[in-house]
Amino acid sequence: MRIEVLFTPAEITEAAVKGKTVAVIDVLRACTTIAFALSRGCSSIVPVASVEAATSLVASLDRNVTLLGGEREGKRIDGFDLGNSPAEYTAEIVKRKTLVLATTNGTRAVSMSEGAREIVITSFVNMGSVVDHAAKLEDEDLTIVCAGKNNRFALEDAVCAGMVIERLCKDKEAELNDGAQAARGLYKQNEESITALLRECEHGRYLEGLGFARDLEICSRVDSLSILPLVKQGRIGRPRKPRKK
Amino acid sequence: MRIEVLFTPAEITEAAVKGKTVAVIDVLRACTTIAFALSRGCSSIVPVASVEAATSLVASLDRNVTLLGGEREGKRIDGFDLGNSPAEYTAEIVKRKTLVLATTNGTRAVSMSEGAREIVITSFVNMGSVVDHAAKLEDEDLTIVCAGKNNRFALEDAVCAGMVIERLCKDKEAELNDGAQAARGLYKQNEESITALLRECEHGRYLEGLGFARDLEICSRVDSLSILPLVKQGRIGRPRKPRKK
Repeated sequence: MRIEVLFTPAEITEAAVKGKTVAVIDVLRACTTIAFALSRGCSSIVPVASVEAATSLVASLDRNVTLLGGEREGKRIDGFDLGNSPAEYTAEIVKRKTLVLATTNGTRAVSMSEGAREIVITSFVNMGSVVDHAAKLEDEDLTIVCAGKNNRFALEDAVCAGMVIERLCKDKEAELNDGAQAARGLYKQNEESITALLRECEHGRYLEGLGFARDLEICSRVDSLSILPLVKQGRIGRPRKPRKK
Repeated sequence: MRIEVLFTPAEITEAAVKGKTVAVIDVLRACTTIAFALSRGCSSIVPVASVEAATSLVASLDRNVTLLGGEREGKRIDGFDLGNSPAEYTAEIVKRKTLVLATTNGTRAVSMSEGAREIVITSFVNMGSVVDHAAKLEDEDLTIVCAGKNNRFALEDAVCAGMVIERLCKDKEAELNDGAQAARGLYKQNEESITALLRECEHGRYLEGLGFARDLEICSRVDSLSILPLVKQGRIGRPRKPRKK
């Protein structure tokens, strides 16, 4: 098995994703929010790249069963039902609803990974489900795409990628690219302090400044949700329980 | 002082380089080769982006005082005087010559850093000179651009960036972006084994396969050259000794 880590979507090449299993990571906060929404009963999520795409899509859907969520610069978008805080996505609000979600970095990483055989939404909260799934790949390759921040390296995404690798490499040998090697090293330096990491990384400090300190704590809860969100034909699918845990 | 590390030229924004001191790192091998050539008496180096640009530029110059060097996929280009191995650039060959140099990643990082107040060519071999120079920046910002490999993260460049930061932060406090934080951590994991790192990273293994094992050893000699190559108006300037050592 070969594992590649790409630290920003700009590192994506066709060869890196075509026909492969791709794990997209955006710890703060899109991938964590998606895991929360699906866990709380949301039927499906449509990730979109722009506010305009979100509002025009929602205009064509039944508003009684559709929610509009997302952020720009971390803040809820004017006129949207929800922002990008995982805790907003309660069962009461999201159950049996379709969510149209416009976020800055996570959505872009997903759309640039088109061509993958399978895209798995990955964060600390659903780490165990993702690793169980990836462990079944056998000889297939795994590409991990970090969403980063405005096309820049984001430390929290790199450490999360490193955790996937560290767990996978407990049971099997894998060939690692430079990014995967680095991510694993960065995880080892931070494994005892994921919550502190999320508070100290650039985007964590920015979110704390906006009043989202509680989100950082929620996003750092490793293995707190048992869910495997998969992107299929532009939609992030209903959760399914991993076969074994 | 704020220090930013960008792991690939794709992370460059105008704000990151405009009016700033930019250290460009390409350990394997362009920046090491440039340091060698200038140390051995080469008068100046013109980095160019393509083989075509190199050959057409050379056609307009006095061939008696001009050398044509560079690589594609690590190998010397057909018809060129020299490849990209530091050891090729002996005093006998390069003294008082102008070198037109076409390399894949280092040249691109330099040209994408245009707009900088100053561009410093950085590698392990001239680490001390670069750090002495950067230490004089006082309150100015430093941006470190890793050339990477074909727009991908390269571990050896990241570790070299981390070494610049580790040395600079011995004497002064600096605000670090996520890339700088990660680079410093990766340096700490590799500081005792730079030669091994160059043998184990992806590009090092590739070069070893081409028969360039000796280059890896040369590129890992920290502080072996006292030289500060600066890019000015498209040329990499004559060396000057740093004021104090």
